[in-house]
Amino acid sequence: MAVITIIGSGMMGSALAFPARENGHTVRLCGTHLDREIIDICRRTGRHPKFTRDFPAGVEYYQIEELEKALDGADLVIGGVSSFGVDWFSEAVLPLIPETTPILTVTKGLIHDGNGRLLSYPAYWQSKSERKLCLNAVGGPCTSYELVAHDQTEVTFCGEDPEILRRIRSYMETDYYHVSISTDVTGIESAVALKNGYALGIALTIGLNQAKFGRDSELHFNSQAAVFGQSVREMKKLLAYQGADTPENLAVGLGDLYVTVYGGRTRLVGILLGRGLSIEEALAELQGVTLESLVVSRRVAEAVRVAAGNETLSLADFPLLCHIDGILTNHASPELPWDSFRSETV
Amino acid sequence: MAVITIIGSGMMGSALAFPARENGHTVRLCGTHLDREIIDICRRTGRHPKFTRDFPAGVEYYQIEELEKALDGADLVIGGVSSFGVDWFSEAVLPLIPETTPILTVTKGLIHDGNGRLLSYPAYWQSKSERKLCLNAVGGPCTSYELVAHDQTEVTFCGEDPEILRRIRSYMETDYYHVSISTDVTGIESAVALKNGYALGIALTIGLNQAKFGRDSELHFNSQAAVFGQSVREMKKLLAYQGADTPENLAVGLGDLYVTVYGGRTRLVGILLGRGLSIEEALAELQGVTLESLVVSRRVAEAVRVAAGNETLSLADFPLLCHIDGILTNHASPELPWDSFRSETV
Repeated sequence: MAVITIIGSGMMGSALAFPARENGHTVRLCGTHLDREIIDICRRTGRHPKFTRDFPAGVEYYQIEELEKALDGADLVIGGVSSFGVDWFSEAVLPLIPETTPILTVTKGLIHDGNGRLLSYPAYWQSKSERKLCLNAVGGPCTSYELVAHDQTEVTFCGEDPEILRRIRSYMETDYYHVSISTDVTGIESAVALKNGYALGIALTIGLNQAKFGRDSELHFNSQAAVFGQSVREMKKLLAYQGADTPENLAVGLGDLYVTVYGGRTRLVGILLGRGLSIEEALAELQGVTLESLVVSRRVAEAVRVAAGNETLSLADFPLLCHIDGILTNHASPELPWDSFRSETV
Repeated sequence: MAVITIIGSGMMGSALAFPARENGHTVRLCGTHLDREIIDICRRTGRHPKFTRDFPAGVEYYQIEELEKALDGADLVIGGVSSFGVDWFSEAVLPLIPETTPILTVTKGLIHDGNGRLLSYPAYWQSKSERKLCLNAVGGPCTSYELVAHDQTEVTFCGEDPEILRRIRSYMETDYYHVSISTDVTGIESAVALKNGYALGIALTIGLNQAKFGRDSELHFNSQAAVFGQSVREMKKLLAYQGADTPENLAVGLGDLYVTVYGGRTRLVGILLGRGLSIEEALAELQGVTLESLVVSRRVAEAVRVAAGNETLSLADFPLLCHIDGILTNHASPELPWDSFRSETV
């Protein structure tokens, strides 16, 4: 049996304690400096404050001061920080992990290098380190609370070494947590980060229709599906820009887009923006919600603008992304530019 | 202004009377021999019995005996029959339409020629005729009742001649009905027909989760998204088999898949099958519902089996399609073959 240490007791990191512990491994859940209260509650009740189900018996809880002890002898370190903790993870945690110990990060996102390039977090972390780290990541459609409920879930572990990916999979896979593997880290990480702006765009139609037809009008799936189709067009082009337009990356990214439209907080922001609220008003209404998705959307739009500036990409290929970015950064009207989604394939 | 004749007063054909008439055209809605009562009601009330909104003023209604009068001088004939009316349309209607009059069909489906080839309805109709017909078709995500509600909707008109497609678009496009055009008839028609079995597969997870977690348990989007991702993989391969794996066809097909999971009757069948009902029990419970989608799913599976028999395709690439077909034709257990969806991209 292995020792699996999870750093960060947010919902996603904590949810992975379930399959790991159910497989019989030693599981150490270590909070960050922001998680002190969560760890206290877990110790006292055996349950994460945001979950409706107890952790499996035997999960061990650590406060940040016990980080080194939590990492001692770990066979796998799961990085469960949010996008906002990426640099902290790089500076405070990664230096403590031996080069031979696999790391599996759940943080979804991309970093814009300022020159139009979008880096995965594993690539970004490696660029910050002088050691050769064993960085792997989880992509694919998985909301934490449904994983906790043991809903059937399929994800992809990506990393450089297939043998290490298979080993990590052997620790984590259960009869409800199914794991594909891929050595295309840029591809998987791009696919699951690029979806953010598009999920917002699809949710936008719900709010627009509520504004037009009344708050309790039925959901309007024609609009959602039209924006979903446009998202497919644009995500495919962005994957190509990332050198990663493969069927598998697209399938993982679109599955992730699908779940984000329904299961995520991004949906709530999109609906409020569609109703006509400004981004500031929407965020005020959703007080306390962390919105990594907005950060990632902005970074992607920024990179696309830079790439358009040097003619590597054309903004005309990304009317939906530009529209979302306009709402987020320039208070543009939420009404969608439908005509720009039309195509002539002749 | 043009004369637009719609043959078949089912929901989809009838819904197209809205944009056509709102654009000021003469619109003649002609029922089939199955639509007698619908036409009577339309004449009496100005409203289709399945719609919650009156037709625009001035739509004209014809019984099947008045077919020739309805077609007289038409600038566009919209074919609004179901899959079950495809041969009737071919034999009773097409011979009455001049070669120069464009036809736009809303019927979604494919015909299996018995040798593994899947033909679009336009191709099938042309093969049955000795004249050169001007056949065009509508694809893309559009539920009729949302079109009637004037939800923002985006579809694709496909046909051989771009100029004719642009002309038909000019008749039909409004500020809520947005039209792309494509000369890839096989591609668009395949994309929107192939989605049927996959929509059923996604809905299946809802019923499976209801059986496992209780009828009123929340929707489980991890499972839906996983099956959506697998649908992307398989639909892309089927499009390639049809010689039609383009980004645009995929976007149209996946948008259509998205709307079918939510807006369609296929969803209801999928949920019932997931709960453990046999297909006979599910159909009995949904009495009166026409299920073209099941017919098309079976045809596609049949063609894939033939193609696998002569090694043009491999069944291992289509575990979801085979699973759905097994439920529909062999009372297979609805429990999904999750492990067969996993991949190793190394």
